Amino acid sequence: MKSFVIHSVHAACMTANDLGLQANAAVAIENGQIAWVGSTTSLPDRFRSWEQYDGEGKLLTPSLTDCHTHLVWAGSRAGEFRQRLHGASYADIAAQGGGILSTVKATRAATENELFAASLPRAQALLSQGVGHIEIKSGYGLSLVDELKQLRVARRIGAQLPLKVTTTLLAAHALPPEFKDDADGYIEHIIADILPAAVDQGLAEAVDVFCENIGFTRAQTERVFQAAQAHGLPVKLHAEQLSDQDGSALVAHYQGLSADHLEYLSESGIRAMAAAGTVAVLLPGAFYFLRETKLPPIDLLRQHGVPIAIATDANPGSSPLVQLPLMMHLACSLFRLTPEEAWLGVTRHAAAALGDQGQGTIAVGQRADLALWNLSAPEEICYEFGINPLHSLWIAGNQVS
Amino acid sequence: MKSFVIHSVHAACMTANDLGLQANAAVAIENGQIAWVGSTTSLPDRFRSWEQYDGEGKLLTPSLTDCHTHLVWAGSRAGEFRQRLHGASYADIAAQGGGILSTVKATRAATENELFAASLPRAQALLSQGVGHIEIKSGYGLSLVDELKQLRVARRIGAQLPLKVTTTLLAAHALPPEFKDDADGYIEHIIADILPAAVDQGLAEAVDVFCENIGFTRAQTERVFQAAQAHGLPVKLHAEQLSDQDGSALVAHYQGLSADHLEYLSESGIRAMAAAGTVAVLLPGAFYFLRETKLPPIDLLRQHGVPIAIATDANPGSSPLVQLPLMMHLACSLFRLTPEEAWLGVTRHAAAALGDQGQGTIAVGQRADLALWNLSAPEEICYEFGINPLHSLWIAGNQVS
Ligand SMILES: [Zn+2]
Ligand SMILES: [Zn+2]
Repeated sequence: MKSFVIHSVHAACMTANDLGLQANAAVAIENGQIAWVGSTTSLPDRFRSWEQYDGEGKLLTPSLTDCHTHLVWAGSRAGEFRQRLHGASYADIAAQGGGILSTVKATRAATENELFAASLPRAQALLSQGVGHIEIKSGYGLSLVDELKQLRVARRIGAQLPLKVTTTLLAAHALPPEFKDDADGYIEHIIADILPAAVDQGLAEAVDVFCENIGFTRAQTERVFQAAQAHGLPVKLHAEQLSDQDGSALVAHYQGLSADHLEYLSESGIRAMAAAGTVAVLLPGAFYFLRETKLPPIDLLRQHGVPIAIATDANPGSSPLVQLPLMMHLACSLFRLTPEEAWLGVTRHAAAALGDQGQGTIAVGQRADLALWNLSAPEEICYEFGINPLHSLWIAGNQVS
Repeated sequence: MKSFVIHSVHAACMTANDLGLQANAAVAIENGQIAWVGSTTSLPDRFRSWEQYDGEGKLLTPSLTDCHTHLVWAGSRAGEFRQRLHGASYADIAAQGGGILSTVKATRAATENELFAASLPRAQALLSQGVGHIEIKSGYGLSLVDELKQLRVARRIGAQLPLKVTTTLLAAHALPPEFKDDADGYIEHIIADILPAAVDQGLAEAVDVFCENIGFTRAQTERVFQAAQAHGLPVKLHAEQLSDQDGSALVAHYQGLSADHLEYLSESGIRAMAAAGTVAVLLPGAFYFLRETKLPPIDLLRQHGVPIAIATDANPGSSPLVQLPLMMHLACSLFRLTPEEAWLGVTRHAAAALGDQGQGTIAVGQRADLALWNLSAPEEICYEFGINPLHSLWIAGNQVS
């Protein structure tokens, strides 16, 4: 594997809350890992014989991580959106078989190849934006065969594209028609059948639940968490999106990687997350698209030192937005995150939300997942939108664009 | 010039409020114009010998028109945005020379080549999104030489790229430092010097004013309109963005092409616009970025039959968003426009806002400005965002992507 140096860059190492900026920096890469970081002028002799890549003063950052997506799905709900804009109610649309169950139906009906073909362009779009690591959840199969099919497609995306894919089993996303009025029975099916099979086939790296008054209860969530723990899998949670279910405290109690959404998060939940090191994953795309007005408790998260990540939540219903820099824009504009928080939210903190500790930084020993940008200051990506600022992208030391 | 046929497309001709959809349509193009539109199966014999382009069932629409931009500027206000997110007040930033006057300073300081180099990528980004016609306003020069410089750069963009550029003189955008406390003096300078020079050099196709309590008064606006009329130029207006100045009725009185922004537009203003055929240009990017909560009066615009256009308002301060399909997304999500209204807003109605009557439609005799999309239904562009759906673009009959 090629050893090389990227020099003369404005590096944002993400090693500190001020982004750890280094002017005229150089990074040496060996065996796909970062071997050295420092000033271009003090590059040690042993790196001078390596291939040299002139960064021409551009901004170098870790590549981006999208730590919450549902990007494997079939079908489209654009037609439902159009109907709603023409005055149809959610009830009208549900009566026609719309909503999440229409995505479940289409995802079940798709062959594995069809599902792969429908989903791949979404991952390619993220890659083209500088994303090197994507989490992909199941949750539109809601049956043993279809959840596993979704996770296999996620794995194929990771095999097909140069980026890293982390998979999450979210069988407890919604109640499938087969278990209508029997949520406990479905939870039992997940624990007895779906989760063990996913583990057995190496298809799940974490387990997630949609804990909400329209989703699963706290007690059902806890059963899934206990099963995940028994299988040695970390947990995360769709929590406090529409109401405060105190799910964040629950996921923190299980040393969860992240609690996600969090508009209705309480201070006690924040304390629990802070104590457990659970990442707060904010999803401004869903906030925007659902025209939510209740903001997540950003100031309290700051005060308690909870790491904040940002993700697309790419999904066919509530965040049909496959654009991670747009999430940085929305996070700054709508949530008033600082550009520094937005950057940490798609690099170091997003990696932490996936258990990929230490990644999302430019530091010795980390995978060389790096993005070079046509930007003179980090905050520009949170401001001007429409021109893709990505110049070059390396993933595990391989230049992929 | 090549004659050719695009066949087997799902055409949205924009000739009716339901978008004038035609399944399995064909369009014949001769001398850069549309010579025939109809069903692929009934393509007349005389077109069958022409080069045939198979649209493979994809969506064909007119190319997009961005009818309100300020995309020629130098400098960046991302740093000010960052400061605000770190707690600086607008007053703090103004005290540092920030705000619009920092853009004026940078735009004046830039050479014509520098200004061109800074602005070209913005127009290229729009082109890559399927935009074939862009309006570009001056308004960051605010002096004779610098306003003309900005307009020459706009012309160069139109010469460099295959798209059409329409220029608008917006010298009455803000008060330059030289005329501090003498707005009437600056208006006099515009009328006596800047406008005649722009007309003389063929640099302006319309005249615009920022009529607002923080901009120019209704009386000052009217003086500029009278001067424009004397030179034979159509007028348009930044109107009712922050307060109701009754500017829309004024611009309608002068048979204005458009009134733009309109959050605070009254019903009497709407009546005047409807009577004059003045287009309502909505700018959802500025609405989003300024976190405005007052919605433009969409229902009243509908009731009075005022044509609605949508544009980026691309500018360095209040809408740093060079992405027209994102405006369709924001318009549907935030303003609750229907996808049909969003499409008409960036095609037929946007063309009307630029006085380019009849364009933005797929109809015999119109310029062959056409976009082919990887979309199965028009509403998809207003829904899933992040993957560029543009497949091919023709401008005046030339394929440019
Ligand atoms: Zn989600
Ligand atoms: Zn404007």
